[in-house]
Amino acid sequence: MLITSSLDEVKKRETALDTINSIITKDGRDSLHDLTGLSGGFLATQDDLNLLETYIGPAIFEEKLQELGKIHLGGEKVFAVNRTSSGILASILALVSKNSYVIHFLPEFPAHPSIVRSCKLVGANYLEFDDINNFNIPDNTSMVIITGSTMDHKVIDEKVFKKIIAMAKTKNDIPILVDDASGARLRTAIFSQKKATELGADLVVTSTDKLMLGPRGGLMAGKKNFIDKIKSKATQFGLEAQPPSILAMVKGLEAYKKDDLLKSISKKQKLIDLLHDFEMFEETPTGIMVSEISLKKEIDKYNSTNDFSSKDLSFLWAMVLLKEEHIVTIPAVSMPGASATIRFDLASKDTMKLDVLQEKIVNSFKKLLEL
Amino acid sequence: MLITSSLDEVKKRETALDTINSIITKDGRDSLHDLTGLSGGFLATQDDLNLLETYIGPAIFEEKLQELGKIHLGGEKVFAVNRTSSGILASILALVSKNSYVIHFLPEFPAHPSIVRSCKLVGANYLEFDDINNFNIPDNTSMVIITGSTMDHKVIDEKVFKKIIAMAKTKNDIPILVDDASGARLRTAIFSQKKATELGADLVVTSTDKLMLGPRGGLMAGKKNFIDKIKSKATQFGLEAQPPSILAMVKGLEAYKKDDLLKSISKKQKLIDLLHDFEMFEETPTGIMVSEISLKKEIDKYNSTNDFSSKDLSFLWAMVLLKEEHIVTIPAVSMPGASATIRFDLASKDTMKLDVLQEKIVNSFKKLLEL
Repeated sequence: MLITSSLDEVKKRETALDTINSIITKDGRDSLHDLTGLSGGFLATQDDLNLLETYIGPAIFEEKLQELGKIHLGGEKVFAVNRTSSGILASILALVSKNSYVIHFLPEFPAHPSIVRSCKLVGANYLEFDDINNFNIPDNTSMVIITGSTMDHKVIDEKVFKKIIAMAKTKNDIPILVDDASGARLRTAIFSQKKATELGADLVVTSTDKLMLGPRGGLMAGKKNFIDKIKSKATQFGLEAQPPSILAMVKGLEAYKKDDLLKSISKKQKLIDLLHDFEMFEETPTGIMVSEISLKKEIDKYNSTNDFSSKDLSFLWAMVLLKEEHIVTIPAVSMPGASATIRFDLASKDTMKLDVLQEKIVNSFKKLLEL
Repeated sequence: MLITSSLDEVKKRETALDTINSIITKDGRDSLHDLTGLSGGFLATQDDLNLLETYIGPAIFEEKLQELGKIHLGGEKVFAVNRTSSGILASILALVSKNSYVIHFLPEFPAHPSIVRSCKLVGANYLEFDDINNFNIPDNTSMVIITGSTMDHKVIDEKVFKKIIAMAKTKNDIPILVDDASGARLRTAIFSQKKATELGADLVVTSTDKLMLGPRGGLMAGKKNFIDKIKSKATQFGLEAQPPSILAMVKGLEAYKKDDLLKSISKKQKLIDLLHDFEMFEETPTGIMVSEISLKKEIDKYNSTNDFSSKDLSFLWAMVLLKEEHIVTIPAVSMPGASATIRFDLASKDTMKLDVLQEKIVNSFKKLLEL
């Protein structure tokens, strides 16, 4: 066993940090391939930064965000929030009254905790449904929320989506908010569904770091009168996105192409085919992954006498991938106690050609067997 | 009258935007002098951005922030929030219980609204004092808040500060939070007071864009157990600062020098002396300003037959300052309805030598008289 304590994990992480720094310093950022899928998009150029630093820069990016946000999400007005959770809190603070109902439909339980917590904070009664046959909207409802796709990328059926909207529209003026964190792209690009606003939603919020190259943050769009109320609450409590994030959102929206997302799905299939000699890989929405248990099983096929724990093997492989192949995966750099699953995310902008990636995976695995 | 509608103001702003863009494009960012005092600090280099874009970059900046934040504010642990208001909300959500008291002492009314609003949200009883003789802490108090310096830069007396801390300490375990938005620098650098944590506060929050070159955002520091609770609440509701802001905070803290702040105060006095021929200037904490009314009076001394409104004159002067002298002031670029007061902020990193600034002010004023 190599890793026996948190301290060992801290040392592992420090070694990885040093390695990343020396790779970037020596060979430049382009020689590093961050395939974690978790790196925040910040595609700004030096010119953007020069402008960002003036009083007026943020106003210019704000205008561009209005333009690009409306293309991406529809609606009359766009508003950038610090995170999707901040947008949900601001919406509930602005539009939900104490003791009223908030009705939430989602394709699969559990609900994102920010919805439940925000309702609790304002003293609203929260009800959730994942079955359209049970779904109903009581009197004294002040908001209907629809989750477009869950944290695990389970996507709502568009027919169900339309039915809920139709039911909500029979009630007077209840705002319909769609939590389309990943759904704004997953539903539309992969499942050919319409935008939430086109389906009749009053408000939609999406996460600009999910399936697009934006920063961690939330982008809202919808009817102007609702957005104005939400914006007012958000700025009172510091829930709005700050200028550097807005710049990064603009850059992320500019870079977003539906086709890239479709390609990452088809790339995933090709990569699985290329790696068919291994039994350890599992699919993720935009890539592949190997759990520490699957890795251990695969290694044991070739060398069952090694002294390493499954966690050791994950960390070792992650370090080999980083040092030899310049590929960053989460276990190399994670904090103590984090999952040791190795992911290769193909929606990352650092993704290389699949045959190159296959070669790097195979070479690093061979190297791991020799340790 | 030139400016008769919001539409005119929009056109004015668009012209200013075009001018700024062409100055930066033609002569580079250094040739533009943004003296609004409102430009967000974002001193990142291309290397920083390269690192920011990896999964691990944010973790590196987070480590640096711990280091520099503790030097700046003291305390056992540091936590970056989206805005000072977000930090106050997170603190009250984490530490204040319903129906308990929150006691706030500030050097002068009114209190920052985020404190009052956050108390209302959790259902706490909020009491505020600006006179130490009336100050008292009832039973069932769950937080004592001290404002170090107000929005108008009115600073607390350090003796009063110590007395409140001593009174709070007689009660068991009531967290003491200091809202030191500008005070963390104004109190310490200008008034030679101690840091809030050195005076016995459990928690302090400061605004990283006030009197330092950081981004709009809040930085908290204090006792680890309180910070951990606040951090947990903050991440639940999306109140924490995002990686680009954390990077900019690190850069702002690196650039902060007490002496620079002292210099901007003494520079202000020198500039006032240099401009003694004018009667229109008023002091601000870190610079000078001219209201539209004072400007009109000054102009009328030389040319009382002009057709311009006081607002017209402010806008015209702001445009002359921008086009001829490359100085950005708020009226040139503001949104419709904003104040037409012209400020020259000497804490801005774009500040030039005082005799150069004096010359630019005099020349642009002469040019304005000729219009």
